[in-house]
Amino acid sequence: MSAPLKVALLGCGTVGASVLRLLADQAADITARVGRPVEVAGVAVRRPDRHPEVPADLLTTDARALVTRPDVDLVVEVIGGIEPARELMLAAFAAGKSVVSANKALLADDGVALHAAAAEAGVDLYYEAAVAGAIPLLRPLRESLAGDQLTRVVGIVNGTTNYILSRMAETGAGFAEALAEATELGYAEADPTADVDGFDAAAKAAILASLAFHSPVAASDVHREGISAVSATDVARAAEIGCTVKLLAICEKVTGEHGDAIAVRVHPAMIPTTHPLASVGGAFNAVFVEAEAAGQLMFYGQGAGGEPTASAVLGDLVAVARNRVAGVAGPGTTAYAGLPVSPMADTPTRYHVSLDVADKPGVLATVAQEFAAHGVSISTVRQDGAGEAATLVIVTHRAPDSALSATISRLRGMPAVRAVTSVLRVEGLA
Amino acid sequence: MSAPLKVALLGCGTVGASVLRLLADQAADITARVGRPVEVAGVAVRRPDRHPEVPADLLTTDARALVTRPDVDLVVEVIGGIEPARELMLAAFAAGKSVVSANKALLADDGVALHAAAAEAGVDLYYEAAVAGAIPLLRPLRESLAGDQLTRVVGIVNGTTNYILSRMAETGAGFAEALAEATELGYAEADPTADVDGFDAAAKAAILASLAFHSPVAASDVHREGISAVSATDVARAAEIGCTVKLLAICEKVTGEHGDAIAVRVHPAMIPTTHPLASVGGAFNAVFVEAEAAGQLMFYGQGAGGEPTASAVLGDLVAVARNRVAGVAGPGTTAYAGLPVSPMADTPTRYHVSLDVADKPGVLATVAQEFAAHGVSISTVRQDGAGEAATLVIVTHRAPDSALSATISRLRGMPAVRAVTSVLRVEGLA
Repeated sequence: MSAPLKVALLGCGTVGASVLRLLADQAADITARVGRPVEVAGVAVRRPDRHPEVPADLLTTDARALVTRPDVDLVVEVIGGIEPARELMLAAFAAGKSVVSANKALLADDGVALHAAAAEAGVDLYYEAAVAGAIPLLRPLRESLAGDQLTRVVGIVNGTTNYILSRMAETGAGFAEALAEATELGYAEADPTADVDGFDAAAKAAILASLAFHSPVAASDVHREGISAVSATDVARAAEIGCTVKLLAICEKVTGEHGDAIAVRVHPAMIPTTHPLASVGGAFNAVFVEAEAAGQLMFYGQGAGGEPTASAVLGDLVAVARNRVAGVAGPGTTAYAGLPVSPMADTPTRYHVSLDVADKPGVLATVAQEFAAHGVSISTVRQDGAGEAATLVIVTHRAPDSALSATISRLRGMPAVRAVTSVLRVEGLA
Repeated sequence: MSAPLKVALLGCGTVGASVLRLLADQAADITARVGRPVEVAGVAVRRPDRHPEVPADLLTTDARALVTRPDVDLVVEVIGGIEPARELMLAAFAAGKSVVSANKALLADDGVALHAAAAEAGVDLYYEAAVAGAIPLLRPLRESLAGDQLTRVVGIVNGTTNYILSRMAETGAGFAEALAEATELGYAEADPTADVDGFDAAAKAAILASLAFHSPVAASDVHREGISAVSATDVARAAEIGCTVKLLAICEKVTGEHGDAIAVRVHPAMIPTTHPLASVGGAFNAVFVEAEAAGQLMFYGQGAGGEPTASAVLGDLVAVARNRVAGVAGPGTTAYAGLPVSPMADTPTRYHVSLDVADKPGVLATVAQEFAAHGVSISTVRQDGAGEAATLVIVTHRAPDSALSATISRLRGMPAVRAVTSVLRVEGLA
């Protein structure tokens, strides 16, 4: 057996500690799978005194020195955030080291430049753990489906919001109440903004869209709406039409006036309870993929947590270690297609709208006319009358999002409309 | 751009024709992804006159000459069956060509020798299409989870039987009636033996077990029971306990007297309707994976059909083409763990048993005593009395399969038992 490959671990929080433990527990198997042993060269942390479980001679506060050490072959970055992770990654590439990262924010922010730096150095940049935790997803998209054309990727990629929405559906609670429960149980962080407002899902959507469509997509390109405006009424209305509310990350190829483009968006939506994504409950993640030849695929599993995330990191680590032993770099992520990102206004979506209206003849006609005036075709209408008031529940066909939102604005100002009680996009309906 | 890579296509049935079409349609994308164009060097068929869609100068009946032609870099084998596929594959390896195959029977029969031949030649043998059609499964098992320990793989890997069982559950039909419908609709072949008796699923189980546990497993090692004995009563009884009947391929690590082993089996079983596999209907496939760190994962998609299977073939083709461009072989399938296969008799399983018994005091005690005498612990019993007869519905805890089958044999001979109306294994119950 040849000399061991040496790994520099940057960061030793929940994921890093699990990576260390798995590397030790699985040493014999990893050696067999890589062809050489894989050993830890050092662990860079800010406060060495907080890591009594790590052998003292491995700990260092000088991450920069560690990643450029000549005996280090591979770098695992689980610090998170933009800096110093970005700078350390670039230093690793420049020194000829391959990098495995779980850093969705950095990859979504600066993926194109990082991939270019890795390619120039002839090393690997793998980051399966950055999206949907333990679920093998990026490798299948990049490699298994490399001979196919992806048309759509729809994912539940944030466990916190999925837990909150699942609880709202189960208990009838409002958003605030469900969030409070999630916080108490540790499913939501003290500052839940990144999850609840969709920032986390948007970063993952950007990474998925880049891979799926071989085009540069950054988090800032993603249309983003969180779940804090989802009401108990929205959830109840969804159930009435055989749907459930999920926060979806949607990446799709759209064809507009100027040719092919990519639409990338994160927002709550109603999906039919019969859709494979509808039964993905609690803190689980799942990603539904549509490809021209392969048809519909779904990948399901744990989206977060130290051990699941570490499993994904180690899968990548074995891959980059094998590449290092073979003296090659693996297939990189290319942006050769260079498709532009379509503005949300142009992206075709469908809306569900519930209205309280005056129960008198002609109201439906007036409301329907407003949709027609904006070029929005109606799929179904249900009208429930009760005394002076009636409820209209309308589901539209697909139309540009701007036409739909303009229609809603107009409806809010109509005398015949007492209240717009629920507006939510609908996905996956036949 | 460098010279094209040349592909020899062996066989041009449904899958082969789709491979040809996709290679042409996606030429630009495949070139971008591989780094060199990928072109068809020749198509070996038995009856060239039956393939007017293929340019005549590509067609040949001499497959052997085609795979060894010096200008051929890669071979795609979609002939199926054992010979001549096996001999052609070995000839391809000997001539230094990598092979992509969709041949589950051959891989399950002779995988170890074929992998050894590929490794010795320093070329690739990839066969994602052999198991679960378009679903990216073998690559995630082999690569994404390479840093984890798999404990269990449970799959619905045969669409024909899944369709039949789904229809039995929906309509209350018996097996023969549902099979007739499946045959009429083209979901079952004229001779349905390979599907209905579990041979197809057993071949896939052998391939999955080999990959998951890095050990040699052949189709002949797999305990196999088909679905022809599944009755409408079994399906109805399953529904009564909140379950549905599926034909499962189960590969798991078991620990017996002599240390770790692998249990590999294909048989119908009741699974809870809340299990992610339960909602996999019709001709879809899904594989549920449990790993120590990653936890539970599921992969879902189309398990058969020309286009989905061709998508998987092309994913592999892009991978082996990239390896060829890089001058390396990809990670092979190793059997380094060398775990033995556990006999079915020793494999722990759970049974559901429905009995018609005489409704008099002491019958339950007598029946329970029979389970206890074989060391089988009972999980739940439901007794429904009606006049002179009563029904006992028993679900056991896990016990060696031989102890369970011995118990059933004894029950069949007991005077107090009028009839054993349903016996089926149960999986996935808490």
